[in-house]
Amino acid sequence: MQLSQPQLDAFERDGYVFVPGLFSASEIRLLRAEVDRLVALDREEILRDETGELRAALAMERYSEPFARLVRHPRLVQPAWQILGGAVYDHQYKIVAKEPFGRLDFPWHQDFASWHAYDGMPEPRAMNYAVFLDDVSEFNGPISFIPGSHRAGMIDGADAPLPGGKSPLYTLGPDTVAGLVQAGGLVAPKGAAGSAVFFHGCMAHASGPNISPWTRYIVYLTANRVDNHIRKPTRPDFYANRDFTPLEPLADDCLHDLAARHAAA
Amino acid sequence: MQLSQPQLDAFERDGYVFVPGLFSASEIRLLRAEVDRLVALDREEILRDETGELRAALAMERYSEPFARLVRHPRLVQPAWQILGGAVYDHQYKIVAKEPFGRLDFPWHQDFASWHAYDGMPEPRAMNYAVFLDDVSEFNGPISFIPGSHRAGMIDGADAPLPGGKSPLYTLGPDTVAGLVQAGGLVAPKGAAGSAVFFHGCMAHASGPNISPWTRYIVYLTANRVDNHIRKPTRPDFYANRDFTPLEPLADDCLHDLAARHAAA
Repeated sequence: MQLSQPQLDAFERDGYVFVPGLFSASEIRLLRAEVDRLVALDREEILRDETGELRAALAMERYSEPFARLVRHPRLVQPAWQILGGAVYDHQYKIVAKEPFGRLDFPWHQDFASWHAYDGMPEPRAMNYAVFLDDVSEFNGPISFIPGSHRAGMIDGADAPLPGGKSPLYTLGPDTVAGLVQAGGLVAPKGAAGSAVFFHGCMAHASGPNISPWTRYIVYLTANRVDNHIRKPTRPDFYANRDFTPLEPLADDCLHDLAARHAAA
Repeated sequence: MQLSQPQLDAFERDGYVFVPGLFSASEIRLLRAEVDRLVALDREEILRDETGELRAALAMERYSEPFARLVRHPRLVQPAWQILGGAVYDHQYKIVAKEPFGRLDFPWHQDFASWHAYDGMPEPRAMNYAVFLDDVSEFNGPISFIPGSHRAGMIDGADAPLPGGKSPLYTLGPDTVAGLVQAGGLVAPKGAAGSAVFFHGCMAHASGPNISPWTRYIVYLTANRVDNHIRKPTRPDFYANRDFTPLEPLADDCLHDLAARHAAA
């Protein structure tokens, strides 16, 4: 799967591209069932809030075969190569869990500022993709983007701790966000499980809490161009990977294949 | 202005009816400018958070001519009479202010439970209307409803304090909300300033924070049927009015008239 030229142009102009239905219902079923298994694991990469509720799982390629495949899925790796113009590696790979009626939200921030400050990433030649493991609606805390905000590059911002996490955010002040929104507006891509969104490392984004009775689990990969590998990591390696091996795409049916094997077992 | 029979049927079935564009741009301009004046007042009815930011203004009919007219506006009083089947009075009248990038949100709750417990309101023969003083979008914390949830009547719920306020909420537990949503789904009426929504006192509703750079000011009136007047108020009268005089509708141009006078002055 390759992004089309209009999609690549949209990414360059807006800083993101939304691809509804990138993964099939059966592929998502496999991944979603795997999350239910991961939730029960007791590992340092599995983060919980003070009540014990799942907040995130990191570096799932270490302990999950389905997610180890997903990180090298051609429908994700090839677009990342196209967007960044070269081979990419897995800088950070995670599932962010917004549980029903949950308080987890994120103020306006840019990711690259954190990668630069905490991990020593030289340039914003990195991007994220998000794969929806659940339907994302206006009610369960979708990510909001300010289209075109990535073109401002890295913006000086205050540093605020992420509630309960080890991964501080570089938040953007009200006047900065107001100016960016005046220029670019706001969008919140929403859609069925299996949809994906690719977005730039300098994209200003935020999200509110999940007020619905439905989970909102999303897988994120930060893909970094191999020649832009991090120089001075200060965080544990499951936040900032030290293995800069290029992601080699698997076959397009790599998840189907696993689902079939599971079904047969 | 009268609600049509289909609108009345929708209210009975869904517990709410949304009326886009009930007030004109010039009427809203008058009210919005008045809010900017009220913000500066130092009165017990004006509530602020710990940073001094406006959270709400109550009982505005006491100190604001435009809002004293709005509370008796025929486009609001007549529908309230129709819905409740008799003369109504002003039980609680307020502006709820969601400032840009604000934290103000409301968990799932029913209003009638509070009116019953704190004010001694006998029956759920009261309703709310909301008039949008700003455009309401998915980004600035719209109210979410569970259609049909009013038909459950008053649901036993835990009592949680409203952050920083004197007006406790009867919140609904996760299992209760999940069951109601499974039956009725979720909706969040959104639209331009001047739109209005009428909703039942037993409607389950919630709202998230305003993550946008735009204000979200909404006027709310709780209209109670006169023969259902409160019996045992425990809150200050600007939360629970003791004057049960029926609201008599003014002329339809009552705000225009005032706007013209202001423009001439």
